[in-house]
Amino acid sequence: MPESIPPDSVGLVEPRCARFDTALTLECGRSLPSYELVYEAYGRLNADRSNAILICHALSGTHHAAGYNSPSDRKPGWWEVCIGPGKPINTNRFFVVCCNNLGGCHGSTGPTSINPATGEPYGADFPIVTVQDWVHSQARLADHLGIDRWAAVAGGSLGAMQALQWAIDYPQRLRHAVVIAAAPRLSAQNIAFNEVARQAIRSDPEFHSGRYQRHQVVPRRGLMLARMLGHITYLSDQAMRAKFGRDLRRGKDDFDFHYEVEFEVESYLRYQGESFVNRFDANTYMHMTKALD
Amino acid sequence: MPESIPPDSVGLVEPRCARFDTALTLECGRSLPSYELVYEAYGRLNADRSNAILICHALSGTHHAAGYNSPSDRKPGWWEVCIGPGKPINTNRFFVVCCNNLGGCHGSTGPTSINPATGEPYGADFPIVTVQDWVHSQARLADHLGIDRWAAVAGGSLGAMQALQWAIDYPQRLRHAVVIAAAPRLSAQNIAFNEVARQAIRSDPEFHSGRYQRHQVVPRRGLMLARMLGHITYLSDQAMRAKFGRDLRRGKDDFDFHYEVEFEVESYLRYQGESFVNRFDANTYMHMTKALD
Repeated sequence: MPESIPPDSVGLVEPRCARFDTALTLECGRSLPSYELVYEAYGRLNADRSNAILICHALSGTHHAAGYNSPSDRKPGWWEVCIGPGKPINTNRFFVVCCNNLGGCHGSTGPTSINPATGEPYGADFPIVTVQDWVHSQARLADHLGIDRWAAVAGGSLGAMQALQWAIDYPQRLRHAVVIAAAPRLSAQNIAFNEVARQAIRSDPEFHSGRYQRHQVVPRRGLMLARMLGHITYLSDQAMRAKFGRDLRRGKDDFDFHYEVEFEVESYLRYQGESFVNRFDANTYMHMTKALD
Repeated sequence: MPESIPPDSVGLVEPRCARFDTALTLECGRSLPSYELVYEAYGRLNADRSNAILICHALSGTHHAAGYNSPSDRKPGWWEVCIGPGKPINTNRFFVVCCNNLGGCHGSTGPTSINPATGEPYGADFPIVTVQDWVHSQARLADHLGIDRWAAVAGGSLGAMQALQWAIDYPQRLRHAVVIAAAPRLSAQNIAFNEVARQAIRSDPEFHSGRYQRHQVVPRRGLMLARMLGHITYLSDQAMRAKFGRDLRRGKDDFDFHYEVEFEVESYLRYQGESFVNRFDANTYMHMTKALD
């Protein structure tokens, strides 16, 4: 956390956990007997419960959308730029809720959670979840919070797909859908990238068919490759050209003719890949890309 | 081979091998004490040796550009559509030469060849070669064939980069450079794709730092991932949409909610990846992408 909290931040926030003990039937036909959703909330719910905004996260997002979880946090939540007092999603006016999605790896029930049927982590046995499943689980969270109708459901990318699905499944339960950088469905090229990412994870010998927790290992290399590939798609060709061009790695002025980092863009991708594996679960990555498809 | 050779095919052809015993100094500073280039030739060299065309191959290409190497071949060379009697590169008029590049895995000296200094395959010790190195080695092949000046040097993609480099390094030794689908240098995005492909190969535990021949294994999974990724970039977003769209795999009419092939585009990529590993060497793939960079 910065030495003093900026006045336009929601400040210190604590995640909360909602437990649901009624089975949730998923689109794939299987059901979860019970589940938990971890969420954060910023601002105050007004008396008629009409000022609540649901924020839906994307592929690698979490429930921690704004503020700081501890005084030692160096970084705020992922959408700090948009959520806070006086910010576009103004917490002086709105009660803002963001939950970690089912299948996630940041507290909500997912592949790393214990499967009550076996006493072991779900791992590869966690059912494949869809955007619709997320929206249904979020509707129960709305019930839990006493919110009949969201002032808005908002998100970007995979988060925006949830906002779209909310408008389809519960049109009477939201006033606005804020859909940013999304499409109703992926193109063949998008699916192709996700498939290569999943194959990278699955082909890592430490993946163990998704049961790597049992082996006390993590498919680091596969998840790193998947993330590197993802990062190519997060920047347009033009943006990547502007950001990196053909610049050599800092401190270099000529080629070294080896397979270590020669170009700045290589350095960037390796950093993104390596830092991701410390904060994300490979099975969850499989689930998130599959939901996108 | 088809039951009867089509009249516009060069027909049965045999690869030849040229050996060079004068050391070749490479751009990286190292040198090859000797090397061999495997090549094919179609048509007849005329009396004044002025009708020779050099075809340069791309990333995964070989010296086998046209015709059939044996009566049991089911497929002709990679540029059969362009090279042959009466075809755009008309073998009734031109003497057409195509060689496997240095660092290749189809007969020319490369990572799978024996390093005379150690008696073992070069593997990871094969020096990094560049487009310029290829052009210099091809100039010696021209000398060997008694060709002072090519009527044209032609290629697509990485092959076209060689045609460009010929025009820079030996402008007096070619009349035309036929440059197809190429750029003088790769963009940041191109480099990024190649880097992820190389990381996929290097992170395969069977890569053994490029010394997999010694371990009698092949980094199949890494090379497969690299090729799948390559195939995403060989089709534009639009072409992939037209070819596959969101079609499910043949014989399927709904999602199965698993990680096996759901979409036709996934099936295509896996097929391309799997068939490639049977005909290509991982170290050569590293070299080819590095030369592109």
